[in-house]
This record gives sequence, C-alpha cells and structure tokens, in this order.
Amino acid sequence: MALWKRGLFLCKNNDFFMSISDREAWQQATLDRVLHKMGSLGFDAFVVTDLPSIRWLTGFSGSSARLLLTPRASWLFTDSRYRVQVRDEVRVVEPVIDGEGFVAALHSGRYALGGRVALQSDRVTWHEASRIIAAVDEGCRVLPVEGFFDEFRMVKSPGELLLLQRAADISGQVLEEVIPMISPATRERDIAAEISCRHLKLGAQKDSFDPIVASGVRGAMPHAQPSDARFERGAFIVIDMGCMVEGYASDQTRTVALGPVSTEAREVYGIVREAQQLGVRSARCGMRAKELDALVRSFIAGHGYGEAFGHGLGHGIGLEVHEGLHISPKGDTVLGEGMVFTIEPGIYLEGKFGVRIEDTVVMEAGGARSLQRYTRELIEL
Amino acid sequence: MALWKRGLFLCKNNDFFMSISDREAWQQATLDRVLHKMGSLGFDAFVVTDLPSIRWLTGFSGSSARLLLTPRASWLFTDSRYRVQVRDEVRVVEPVIDGEGFVAALHSGRYALGGRVALQSDRVTWHEASRIIAAVDEGCRVLPVEGFFDEFRMVKSPGELLLLQRAADISGQVLEEVIPMISPATRERDIAAEISCRHLKLGAQKDSFDPIVASGVRGAMPHAQPSDARFERGAFIVIDMGCMVEGYASDQTRTVALGPVSTEAREVYGIVREAQQLGVRSARCGMRAKELDALVRSFIAGHGYGEAFGHGLGHGIGLEVHEGLHISPKGDTVLGEGMVFTIEPGIYLEGKFGVRIEDTVVMEAGGARSLQRYTRELIEL
Repeated sequence: MALWKRGLFLCKNNDFFMSISDREAWQQATLDRVLHKMGSLGFDAFVVTDLPSIRWLTGFSGSSARLLLTPRASWLFTDSRYRVQVRDEVRVVEPVIDGEGFVAALHSGRYALGGRVALQSDRVTWHEASRIIAAVDEGCRVLPVEGFFDEFRMVKSPGELLLLQRAADISGQVLEEVIPMISPATRERDIAAEISCRHLKLGAQKDSFDPIVASGVRGAMPHAQPSDARFERGAFIVIDMGCMVEGYASDQTRTVALGPVSTEAREVYGIVREAQQLGVRSARCGMRAKELDALVRSFIAGHGYGEAFGHGLGHGIGLEVHEGLHISPKGDTVLGEGMVFTIEPGIYLEGKFGVRIEDTVVMEAGGARSLQRYTRELIEL
Repeated sequence: MALWKRGLFLCKNNDFFMSISDREAWQQATLDRVLHKMGSLGFDAFVVTDLPSIRWLTGFSGSSARLLLTPRASWLFTDSRYRVQVRDEVRVVEPVIDGEGFVAALHSGRYALGGRVALQSDRVTWHEASRIIAAVDEGCRVLPVEGFFDEFRMVKSPGELLLLQRAADISGQVLEEVIPMISPATRERDIAAEISCRHLKLGAQKDSFDPIVASGVRGAMPHAQPSDARFERGAFIVIDMGCMVEGYASDQTRTVALGPVSTEAREVYGIVREAQQLGVRSARCGMRAKELDALVRSFIAGHGYGEAFGHGLGHGIGLEVHEGLHISPKGDTVLGEGMVFTIEPGIYLEGKFGVRIEDTVVMEAGGARSLQRYTRELIEL
C-alpha cells in the first residue's frame, strides 16, 4: 500500500516529507470519504465553516476560509491576504479569492448547490446561517449538521500521529528545560514566557494554548493565568502546556513542588498520580469514554476528594486542543484505535493548592500509550 | 466627578489601581447604560455570549461564560473551573456555577425572562441559538441582535485608554529590543519567539495575536507564519505584533531592512510610509471610516500600487484585536472621540517583498494620536 494511503507522509531521519503529488493524493482520498458520507446522507452540497476541518480536508492553514463541497466540484473561499498561501497549500479544491465574501458568492448563483445543503450548525454563527439561508435558491434547503467530521478526525492517521508525537516531544523537551528554572527568585510569568519562547525556538508554530503556571493557592484554579507571584518554598506548581506542530496540538500537565511539601499535599499528589495512571492503564478499545471517566472519578471519590475534581477526565485532541470526544460523565464515544485524548485528573483544594497530572494518549489495540515521557513521580526542587 | 465616573481607575506612579468599591461602582454604571438601551429597544432580557463583552460588562476574564441580563437581576453562568476566579472578579452580577450548562439553566424556568429576549446572533452558533429558542417559554420570543455593544465598546474610557497605551508601550519596548537581533544568523522563528517571551516577561498577559515575522518574498503574504528562514541581506522584514494587558490589545507593524535595499523597494517603502502618515494626519472626528480609507487608498493607487494593497486600512481594537469599526471601503462608522483603531496600509508585491507600517491611534478632538513612538523611517540594519 502506498504510504499516503495509510496517511503516512514521512519518515526519514525522523523528519517529515511528502511530495506534492503524494499530498494531493492523500487529500483527494480524504475528500472522497467525506463526499461519500455526504452522498449517503443525501446532501447535495456542504458548507464547511470551521478552520480546523478546512485544514484537515484541504491543507489550508489561513485564518479566513469557507469551503463549499459538492460531488462535482469544490471551492475554497478566502481573501486577498492569502492569495499566495492558498495557491501554495491547496491542491484538491479550487481556491477563490473574493472580496465580496462567501455569502455574496453563494448569492451570485455561480456555484450550483442542488436541493439539500448541509451547514455546520455548531461552527457557524446564527447570523451567518441566516444570511446563507437567505442567499441560496428558493428550492434549496439548508440543513443543520453537527459533528459531521468528528468520526473522521477523531481517528488519527499514522501521519497525524507523528505530528502529534512531535508536538508532544517539543513540549516535553521544553518542560525539562524550564522545571530547573523554578526557584524563589523566579515568577510564574517568567516560566510561562520561557515555555512560549522555547516552543517556538524548537520548531513549534505556537503554543496550543496559553501556558498555565499556577503556584500555591493559585494552583486550585484549574485555568489560572500566570501572575507576577514568585514561587514559594513548600508550594505546588501546576504547569499545563502544549504547542502546535503543522497544526497539530500537544497538551500535558505536571505538578512539581519547590522544596518539601506538607503531608496532606504529598498524599493528594499520590492520589492524583495513581488516578492518572489508573486512567492510562484502564483505557480499552470498545469502552465508552464515560466508563473511563467513572473509573477514575470513583477512585478519587473513594479517597474523599470527589468534590475537589470538578472537570472531565480528558478530551480529544488533534488539529484543535479540544476536539471530538469528551472523557467525562457524559462522554458517549466508544474508544477506538487511533483516537488521541488526554487523561488529566486533578484535585483542587481552594485556599490551599491544586494538583493535576496530564498525559495525551493514543488508543492502540492493546491499550492506551502515552505520548509523554516526563516522570509523574513527585519532584521536590 | 468621581474618577470612576469618568472610567478612570488609576493613576499613581503610572500604575493602575482601583478599589473594589470603585470597580463595582464603575461596572454598575456601565451595566445601567446597557440596561437602559435594552429598555429603549423593548428587550426584557439579553443573553450575552461573547467573552469580550462579558469581560467589559462584568470583569470576568475566564474562557467559559454566558451572561443573562434583565432589569431586575443579572447572572453570569460559568463552570466549576472558575469557581474561585468568578468570585474574585465579578461584583455586579450574580455568579452561577452550573454543571448542566446555560441552556439547561434557561430551561429550568428559574430565571424569569419576559417576552422579548435579545441574543447576539453574530456571537452565538446556529446550534446554540436553536437550543436557546427551544429552551425558553412558548410565550417568549428570541430576537437576533448584532453589534449591540459596539457603540459602547468602540468609545474607550480614559481607564481603557491607559491599558491600551500600556499594551502599546510594552510591545514598543519589545520591538526596540528585538530589531537589533535581526541578522543573517537569526531566523524569523527566533525573532517571533523573542517577541512572545518578552511580551510576557514585561508584564503582558500574552500576545494579542501570533507575531508575524516575514522576510523577503514571504513579506508579500500579509499573514505569513514565522518560518525557519534566516534573514537575507537586502530583504525587507515585516514585523506585526501586539500584546494584551488586562484584556486590552495592542497592534503595531514595522518593516525594516537587513542592509541596503533596491531602489524599487526603497520607493515602495516611502509610499507606504507617506500613506500611513497621511492616514494618521487626515483622520478627523465626524469623518466616515470609508472616507479615511479612500483617501489613503487613492494615494497608493496614484503611485500605481492600488492592486497591491488588498486589505482594509485598519480596524477597531480594544478587548479584541479586531473589534467594532472597520476602516475599509465599506466602513460606515463615523469616527468620534475616544475611538481606537489601527492605520496600516501595505504594498505587497508577490514574489518580491511586502511593506506594511501600522500604528494604533486614538481619536481626539484635534485629530488622531498614535499610541506608538517607534520610528517609521526606513531602518537598514
């Protein structure tokens, strides 16, 4: 089987390569799968409004795009800022630079839509949906569709897995570099700055989200912003970070201590570490996401900290840092080979401290494999 | 007049301060203006879905929120991750932590809505709008509203202007620090990394957008991503960057040269510089945004580069890096005192180079004042 048919576009000295013709063929195969699903659902056309799915389908990485898919022809609409870029990146659909915008193009009647047009209702504003509905022919029905691409994007190809691994590796190396910088002389802000800087210097396009560096009582806020606070001895520091490589995201969290911590803190750390490892060990193909969540949640509750774990166990990750599946009490997705998601239990004690440990894992036939290697043992700096 | 009534919450040694009671009073006054407009439009309730407007109204800086405004009471819905933060930040509305989510809360009937509920149609997905419409009482009508907050948010208070100036100052200092780092030994990526790092270290919360560092032919792509390309002698380098301070954004662009450039490049630089200064000099209160755009656009076209300037002249900026007004051929907003926007003409010659120069300006009674001080003269490093 040709490499691109397996979605594999690499791998020479750990470097990625893919000839233009291979890339074109791989994207054509992806587009064909999508067009096939469209046909089976009776859609004559599909308006794609979310940039990650547009990137996944066409390779276009710009910040402004609408994609119109039909079985006969497909067009990618963007603006003049991306004139050069769209020509370089996009092969399988026809780029259109249109100053009047996508809705005006639809209204022009230049693009034959057919009778049933699907529109991503969870990825388009009410306003734009109304304008699109008003722009199409009277005989044309615009149908709200949610999660159409999830089943495709949730299962990563070997090529995508390599990009996810590379993103994890870069962020892993950065974590290793910044942890020794933590001292009573440095601030949360400095460590966050070093993380962003080193992600870029090591080859990532950017952070996949703003780094979280939260020490002491601030660690009890799962999404605290880095502050001017200097690190204090005896405090936990939660570091949650990730980067993007060729559009693919990484996500990892470690909690480290500056010097020895209290007995309670050490106990909580141990529970979170065990909970996290329980999650990684227990994930199986065929299991529902909520079963995995329940397993870890009841372990934490069994130690008396159920109330202190207020978020889901994890989330799918790929071209978006949160995508596809939710590992939560409501997560109905059946875990399957090639799915990539985080496992990130935490215990947050308001006014005291927080502990979270997170790996991104890929589901394989035999179980979940972590993309991260950094130790989960308690580090007391 | 009390300071907070003028929106001014500072200013001691150039530092910002605002007591909790002042902040509360200032936010209450803002909320009252909004409730008054709601009343005059006949809205019994307003569902606010965009985070920047929620931050502007309530001070909440988290990444997950819905705000329900009614004349009698108002509620901010968020999730358990923000339990501590919402209590610290929010005074004028009642925080609700609800694991079931906002739509379920509406459906519960616990929040009296009245007959006419406004919903931000350009800031809510079609999917969520449909769910909200289904969740409210039968007698209740959900009305699509666009740009409701623009008239308020477009005109900055003195307090907001100080934050915008601080964001501009931090990014200006970073620009000064990184320009000398440009050499044949450094890469676009390195300069971008230094920009992100220094923004954070100097006190910004983050970049307001991913820094653009685009040299040579890549400069002709207005939104190029920093690459591994090293800088070449004789090339232009476009640097477009900004940061966030207390939620407020800065945005500036300079184009510098590594060593002497060609005669054509020098001529183009001169045209862009004159065009940019023409824009800053010509802006007047009472003028329409498109008049300002037309003035600069025809200047560039008069030099034969009309086709090479494919984007708008500028955009409003505040809690979002693009907000409110557009300085473009379609921009109908009448410029007024306190409005803050960019003036950023560019000439992009595909396969050759690009030049863009951008300041953020504030409209004052006498004209536009730039928040940036960095020279607009050609620098040949």
